[in-house]
Parts: sequence; C-alpha cells; structure tokens
Amino acid sequence: MALMKENDLILIVHDGNRYLKKLEPKKNFHSKRGTLDFSSLVGLPYGIRQGQYEIFEPTVEDLIMYGLRRETQIVYPKDACYICFKLSLKHGDRVIEVGTGSGALTVLFSRAVGSAGMVVSLEKEERHYKNARKNMERFTDMCNVDLRLADISQHEGAGFDAAFIDVREPWTVMEKVWASLKASGSLGIIVPTTNQVSEALRALQPLFGDLEVLEILLRKYKTVADRLRPDDRMVAHTGYLIFGRKVAETVPPPQITS
Amino acid sequence: MALMKENDLILIVHDGNRYLKKLEPKKNFHSKRGTLDFSSLVGLPYGIRQGQYEIFEPTVEDLIMYGLRRETQIVYPKDACYICFKLSLKHGDRVIEVGTGSGALTVLFSRAVGSAGMVVSLEKEERHYKNARKNMERFTDMCNVDLRLADISQHEGAGFDAAFIDVREPWTVMEKVWASLKASGSLGIIVPTTNQVSEALRALQPLFGDLEVLEILLRKYKTVADRLRPDDRMVAHTGYLIFGRKVAETVPPPQITS
Amino acid sequence: MALMKENDLILIVHDGNRYLKKLEPKKNFHSKRGTLDFSSLVGLPYGIRQGQYEIFEPTVEDLIMYGLRRETQIVYPKDACYICFKLSLKHGDRVIEVGTGSGALTVLFSRAVGSAGMVVSLEKEERHYKNARKNMERFTDMCNVDLRLADISQHEGAGFDAAFIDVREPWTVMEKVWASLKASGSLGIIVPTTNQVSEALRALQPLFGDLEVLEILLRKYKTVADRLRPDDRMVAHTGYLIFGRKVAETVPPPQITS
Amino acid sequence: MALMKENDLILIVHDGNRYLKKLEPKKNFHSKRGTLDFSSLVGLPYGIRQGQYEIFEPTVEDLIMYGLRRETQIVYPKDACYICFKLSLKHGDRVIEVGTGSGALTVLFSRAVGSAGMVVSLEKEERHYKNARKNMERFTDMCNVDLRLADISQHEGAGFDAAFIDVREPWTVMEKVWASLKASGSLGIIVPTTNQVSEALRALQPLFGDLEVLEILLRKYKTVADRLRPDDRMVAHTGYLIFGRKVAETVPPPQITS
Repeated sequence: MALMKENDLILIVHDGNRYLKKLEPKKNFHSKRGTLDFSSLVGLPYGIRQGQYEIFEPTVEDLIMYGLRRETQIVYPKDACYICFKLSLKHGDRVIEVGTGSGALTVLFSRAVGSAGMVVSLEKEERHYKNARKNMERFTDMCNVDLRLADISQHEGAGFDAAFIDVREPWTVMEKVWASLKASGSLGIIVPTTNQVSEALRALQPLFGDLEVLEILLRKYKTVADRLRPDDRMVAHTGYLIFGRKVAETVPPPQITS
Repeated sequence: MALMKENDLILIVHDGNRYLKKLEPKKNFHSKRGTLDFSSLVGLPYGIRQGQYEIFEPTVEDLIMYGLRRETQIVYPKDACYICFKLSLKHGDRVIEVGTGSGALTVLFSRAVGSAGMVVSLEKEERHYKNARKNMERFTDMCNVDLRLADISQHEGAGFDAAFIDVREPWTVMEKVWASLKASGSLGIIVPTTNQVSEALRALQPLFGDLEVLEILLRKYKTVADRLRPDDRMVAHTGYLIFGRKVAETVPPPQITS
Repeated sequence: MALMKENDLILIVHDGNRYLKKLEPKKNFHSKRGTLDFSSLVGLPYGIRQGQYEIFEPTVEDLIMYGLRRETQIVYPKDACYICFKLSLKHGDRVIEVGTGSGALTVLFSRAVGSAGMVVSLEKEERHYKNARKNMERFTDMCNVDLRLADISQHEGAGFDAAFIDVREPWTVMEKVWASLKASGSLGIIVPTTNQVSEALRALQPLFGDLEVLEILLRKYKTVADRLRPDDRMVAHTGYLIFGRKVAETVPPPQITS
Repeated sequence: MALMKENDLILIVHDGNRYLKKLEPKKNFHSKRGTLDFSSLVGLPYGIRQGQYEIFEPTVEDLIMYGLRRETQIVYPKDACYICFKLSLKHGDRVIEVGTGSGALTVLFSRAVGSAGMVVSLEKEERHYKNARKNMERFTDMCNVDLRLADISQHEGAGFDAAFIDVREPWTVMEKVWASLKASGSLGIIVPTTNQVSEALRALQPLFGDLEVLEILLRKYKTVADRLRPDDRMVAHTGYLIFGRKVAETVPPPQITS
C-alpha cells in the first residue's frame, strides 16, 4: 500500500477544491475548516478522509492542472486527451509538437509514447522554453522528451508518426510539418478563433486529407444525489481542434516550397 | 515508408465517410464516383489520393469505430479517451473493467498500460464475452488483456491502480470494486440516465472521494474554409461520466458487506 | 369549451410525433396503431386521448413547424422567439424584415406587434414571396403584415422600431436598414457561417452599438421519469444571431452612402 | 425622434457592460474612462456614442435584467421567451402563473397578452409578493396583471389559456393547475434539478399530453470580426423546462382529488 512520504506531492480535496501540495513536514494546510498538519500525514496511506479534508495520490490531471507553472494558456485536459487519441499515439511512437507552451500536452505525449518513444517539442520563445523545461523536469521522464528552443524552420527530422501545432499562425509551419511526418501520419492543431480555423483549412487542403474541425465541451454536475443538476457556469471555449492525415497528392509527392 | 500489403486493414475516406476494409487483392471498393481496385493499391504508400478516394493507415479511432463488431452500445471515443485520462493510466498499470461490452474501452486501456501492464475485463453475458474476445484478438496485444466470462462477485484480485464500471446497476458492484482497488485508486463509471447517476452517487459517497459527474459534448464543423459552420446535427448524449478516488474513511478501512 | 369543428386545423400526437391535419370529415389518420376517423372527432372537445392518439388545438409552434409550406430554411422557434425578445417587440410596434423566406418569423412578428402594429417584410425572390404570401394568408391576421416583392434599395420607410435581416449578404443592406430605423432601434441578423458573422460585424461597427453575437442550443430529453436522459441526437446548428442598436455616431447623424 | 427627458430610464453601455440608470439631472455616471454628466444628455436623441459610452432607450431585456429588484433567481430571458412561445400566448389570452418570484416572466406575459388579456400570478411568500408588486408597478401596465399573495389551493378561476409553474414542488399543484386550464391549454414548468423533472413527469403523465423536457443553452461570442470566438465562460444551467398540454383522459374528464 502506498504510504505518504516526506516531500511527496499530495492532493488535498476540500470543499470541492483541489490543492496540490508538497508534503514538507513543517508545513500545514489551513482553511476555516481547520488545520491539517503535514507531519501527521507522513506514513499514512493515501486515500483518506481527515475531518473535512481528503488526501490522495496525485493523478496526471492533478499534475497538469495544479502542478505545472503556466506562462501560457495550457491545452486543457478535455482537449489534450482527445488529441492524444486522434494522433493514435502508442508506445514507441515519435511525435513532434510545434509550440511547447507550458508543456501540458507534452506531459501527456510523453506518457503515451513511453520510454521506447520520443517527443520532440519546439518552442521559439526563450521564456516559455525555460519554463516548460522546468515543468518537464518535474513531471516527465525526460529521457523521452527532447525540448528545443527552436523554430520549425530549423528542424530537420522526418518520419514522425504524428504532429501537433499550437502556434498563432499554424499555416506558416504547415509544409514543414508535412515534410516531417511519415506517410499517412496524423496532424492535430489547436486555435482559438474561427478566422484561424478558416485560414488553417486553406493551407491544409492540398497537404492533408480526412480533415476534421471540432470542439469539445465538458459540462460538470453538482454531485448531490437528490438535487442533481449541472454547475451554474462552465468553460464555454478553449479552442477549435483541427485534425488531418498526411497525403501525397500525387506519386511522386508534391514539391514543398516555403 | 509504410506500403500497403495484401490483407492489411486500410481506411478509405470518400465523400466525408470512412470505410475500414481489408486489402484483399481480388476485392474492390465501389461507389458512384468509380471503382477502386484493391490489387492496384498493393505496394503503394499509405496516405494517397486516388481520384475521389483517400487511403490511409488506420488509426486507433478507425479500429474502434469501424473495426469492432458491436453487440452493445460502445463507449464513444470522446468519452473513452477522457476516461483513460481520468484513470491516470500509464505503462505498467493494472486496471479492472466491469462490463466489457464490445470492448472499445478495453482496446484503449490495453494501449495505455502497455506490455508491462494488465487489463482485467469482466463480462457476464456469454454472447458479449465471445464477441469481445474476437474483437480483442483482432485489435489488441492480448498478452496484456485478461478477458473473463465472470461476475465481479467471483473476482478475487486486489491492488488495481484503477477501475471502470459499465453495467446497468453500478451500485451493486461498488463495494467489490472498492475492495479490488489500491488505496487512492481512481474509479470511473458510465451510465446513460440521470436516475442512475443519483443512485450511483448514493452508493459512492461512503467509499470514494473527490466525486465528479460530467458529460462531454463533441461538436463537429463542416471543413469549408469560406463557409465555416457546425454540422447541422450532432450526438447529444452518450452517457454521464462519474469519477471518484478510493478512500478509507477511517483507519482501519470500512467493513465491506454485500 | 373549444369543440372540434369541420375543417379546423387539429394537432395529432402519436408515438412522439406531431401531425397538423385539417379536420375534413371524410378523411382519417392512419398508423399501425389503428385508424382515427375524423368524422368521429367533430363536436368533441380538444385535448383528448383516443387510444394511442392525442388531439390538441394547434399552438403557434404547430402552425410554424408543421403548417407553413417551406421553400427556404425557416428561422427555428428557439431562435425566432429570442429574436422577438431582443427586438423588444410590443403591441403597436412597427418592424421591418429583410428576407421574408417562408415567413416563420413574420408570423411571430405579426403576433407580437398586434393589430395596432405593422410588419413590413421584403422578399426579392418572386417564388419565395408567393409562397410566403400564401403562408401569411393562412396563419396571420394579414391586416398588420405588409409583404412586398421588393429589394431594400426600393424601400423608403423610416422610423421603424426594430429591424431583422435574413439574407446571404447582410452587410450589403445594412446602411439602408440603419436609415429605416428610429434612433436607438434594435436590429437582429441571422447567418449560418462564421465568415458571415465576421463580415457583418465589420459593417455593423460604425452604425450600431451594443453588438452581440450568440447562438442558441436546444437540448431535448426523453420524457421517461425513471430513465431521464437527453435525446441521442440534437440539432447542433441553425444560425448565428447578431444583435445591435442603432447609433448616430455623431450629432448630426452620419451620411449614408450606398 | 425620441429625446432623453429628465427621469427617463436610460441604458449606458460601456466596456461591454450595461447599466440601467435613471436620468436624474444632478447625477452622473463615472468610470475610469471619464464622467458622463446626466444633465448634458437631456434633450439629446437616444442611440448616441459619447466618448467611451453608448446611451440607448432601454429594451424589455434591459428592464428585466437590470431593472427588476431580485429577491429570487429570475427566469432568464433565454428560457422566458421560449416559455412565452410554447404557451402560444397572444393578445387577449388569460394566463396563470404559480410562483411569481421576482416577476421577470410576469413582465413578458403581460406584454404578450396585451391590454385585452390578463395575467393572474400567485405568490405565497409575502416578501416576494411585495417585491414583485413593486417590480410590476414599475415595469408593466398593471391593468392586465393580477398579482395575488395566495396559494394555488385558494384559487378558483378556470378556463385559462395557459399556465406556468415555478415552485419547488410543482407536482403538489398540478391537479389544481389542470383544473384551472381550458381544454388543450398549454402548461410550462421550470425546475433546476433532474430529480424534480422525474417527479414532475410522474405527476404530469395522467393529466397532460405531448410532454416535452428540454433545456436551452445560450452561447455568446466576442464581437471582434478578425478574432471571432466564443466567450471563455458561459451560463451552463438555469433550469429544465417541461411542457405539456391538458388532456381529459376520458370523456367525461377525470376526477380530481387532492
């Protein structure tokens, strides 16, 4: 049975909120419901109720949502896990990400491709790159993540199983991404506005087939058995997701010009 | 570069529809747009456009949506990938599934836990069990899937990292599932009606913490750059998802009675 | 108590479907559940159950949804009633509609402004105009509807309390509509695509204030008390609604050029 | 042209927010964008831009959303206008409302039935009744609203064209409401939880036909032409709407027992 150890990350749930904390023995968690003394937790099993508090072993959601230091809007879990699915990631795959941001998706990619796989993630803003690097060091097995302070134009790899683009003007990098993918490889894109979706579709049409545009909405409910109802408010928009699969329109493949 | 071989599964995209086919050399694919002769495809790379058709290497979505033989309503990808995420599945995990159904989720679980992990999936209807077994043999590396024609009451394992329930009356199996989970282990449930959500919440409250109820909506758009708009109709409901994490309310843990 | 008379329009509800029928004595309604003989209904009150059938007095929804002959996509009730609300229509108001279509919204406008009000509705396609005229003759008190086979450029009225535009290129008529409205008068627009929303917003900005863009989603549930759940599928998109209020940017008002 | 007069209600739009204000000459509206001196507005036309401010004549939405003093959750416009539509209200109709609350819906009912119609609205909480009375005096033509501090059990009227119920336990008043309706008359109900929907459906089944349960979602967009996208957050739930039409199950009608 997993027992709490000093300096573990633990998840405290209290009044419907979640707090990811480091179990430093001299610290405590305080609210109007009372004080939870961290030293008293060491050696106890995870998954306990102590007064008004519940303490759990963190899941990947907890790490992404409450552990990552964010310098950019992150790709939310509702979108991120659908992206992993659509990219059909499996152990051993190689995936390229253009626009690391804070690295939320990178963490999921790393888990999906496993130790035999590889995630190459490019970020051209030095500030975001440095922040993402710290996040990756904390939350992934870095041996399968290759984080680079680079622009896709500087990138030479090819034969990737899948690719993801999260930059403001995805159409500017699309041919380079096309070239880096294996035949039939899957591509995902996230953009916040409809104008970007239209612009991206124009660039995608000659290079990628089976195009899809979609959005995912997650609606939460209050967990009261006798008064079941949705929350009053919800996240209404994070981004539009675009997916396609690499096509070589003619055999031989199309010439790429930039 | 991946080339198409005889008897490969291939995905044909045509007029916005997808068809998963086996590349049997004497077969062809026919529509009003013309005939695609399968023997002419053998040896070509995946990811090509041939007239009105696009041909791709199938993704996991293609296998689940178009490859599985369905004898039950399947857990749809939009829900399935969020479930994998919430269960925090990673390589080497052991997960138990109560209610295999047609096995769509089992396929994703198998991919997520990898060769070092294990999926134990219980199905008590013999007909569904047999169908799921065939689906698993085609679409998973069976060495990490233990499919059983069994009721949870006959199940003796413990220490699972995560559990999922897809049966009509999840409350009847909840204590057994609780007992099979490791401390702090994650549980997911899917049910179609609000009445079942209420009933499940009543049974969950003493055994699981950090409860969540939610639904996921996926809205697709027409992929026309100059006339971007959502599809006219969408899937409005597949099921309510319920998540929790095992708690031992007191130390020692609660007595389980059935 | 309202009794059914010969040649009344009646609404038959059967197996969750609605049928608007004329009570012609020699006719009947037939389904696999049996035959409903119309002559047997004459003289009975509305609001009865006869075997598997329910018979009601038609509401305005029944007339619009099942009575109008449609030659165009109609403005759906979920949108239409919100439009009436946002246009703040009340008895005695004068409203102008550009693009009558099949006249669904015209019927609601007519009811909202009453006998002291006036609806001027312009349609430039003769075929739609003629169809709408027949629909109006059947379903409105024509004395408050002025249906015209005309383009907005031929229109000379001014001082309208509110305006609505349902044409493909609303930006081409916006200045004329601006000129026809009273100061502070409300404008509504419906368009199906995001590209049209963007284009309309550009034209609206100098002429109208308090701009809003929104969409309305209506999700139906199965009406089974013990198995309450949403319908499997729903209408995902009808149109984007745009609203604004006339501003005179400067005093004196801006010059209008077309 | 409508000019602003002293003590008019005016709507100020500023930075995407709306403010309903009384035009008291010695007052002003102040924000970080500057001060709008009310005395300077008197005599100007409605519908003007003054620096960062826009000033409009209030619509019914402005009155309901920003003018009503709320002591209860109000029925939101997205729901309220659909309710008016489903109740098929027209000039001259008589409608009964059980549960006035703050009177938002009462205002819309009053406008819909006009001076020849009548709204009887019952509220059993004296505090809410008094508040609603003040709201009605400000925002309706009281001559068609009969607001009563009463329980439905004390109510004797019959033959109403339509009815609406907004109380915690609608099933307790359903037979009385049935008795007050004309044959085939429309009923609407709003409740916040799924448990109430189930309970209401059980009570409705014998008394009302053509039952519907639905919810309305309104999603707003940012009005920036070149960066069109939905708002980040939205109202996810106000209430479930239930509709039915009075049936006399047998002829003669069923005996009503309470």
